[in-house]
Amino acid sequence: MTVTLHVCTTCKAGEVVEDGEALPGARLHAALLAGEIPNGLRIVGVECLSACNSGAAVALSAPGRWSYVYGRLTEADAPDILLGAAAYLDAPDGIVPWRARPVIFRKQSLARIPPLELPHD
Amino acid sequence: MTVTLHVCTTCKAGEVVEDGEALPGARLHAALLAGEIPNGLRIVGVECLSACNSGAAVALSAPGRWSYVYGRLTEADAPDILLGAAAYLDAPDGIVPWRARPVIFRKQSLARIPPLELPHD
Repeated sequence: MTVTLHVCTTCKAGEVVEDGEALPGARLHAALLAGEIPNGLRIVGVECLSACNSGAAVALSAPGRWSYVYGRLTEADAPDILLGAAAYLDAPDGIVPWRARPVIFRKQSLARIPPLELPHD
Repeated sequence: MTVTLHVCTTCKAGEVVEDGEALPGARLHAALLAGEIPNGLRIVGVECLSACNSGAAVALSAPGRWSYVYGRLTEADAPDILLGAAAYLDAPDGIVPWRARPVIFRKQSLARIPPLELPHD
């Protein structure tokens, strides 16, 4: 099972960013790629997760699982995001027990979306 | 193609709800079911979209399409939500042209999630 962590790379997170400086979203993306990436996790940069008022943002998703979006993140959160992604990898439906979630995942959820079921379900 | 509109039925949307009164999320769900539901749209009530600070919330999703979550909705928004869902039905990738989106979808997006691609993509 491959789990995807989408990372908004264009997020300014409310900062005034000078020309040539890395955007907060891009810095978060780089920090995640430089971290300890659990087996089975795919980190994919994406332009805009439409969470612009709550950036920087990431989304965890996988076939048949609940998807989660988290916001108000910085590159300092990269290790915890990767720990949370590892716990998500271990949860067949994507629902990680509350106490096994990093604090940022408990407190900075923007939304979750149920898995898509077949129309006859 | 079936598109799913998940509706958080447990959302209190910051209201103080007396025992026995319908929750704001449940009222939104009922208003949507009573509206003009476009062909191909499946409306599914769900307990908690984890957007509790931005409720009531709905999510639009379909296989191979971007998913969208919208918040700060009331039952008065049901007709516009259904119009927005119809436009989403007509967009093969789920990305509706900006001007074709209802104002609530332009201004009340909580997040969007890219479609899941296969690992070899």
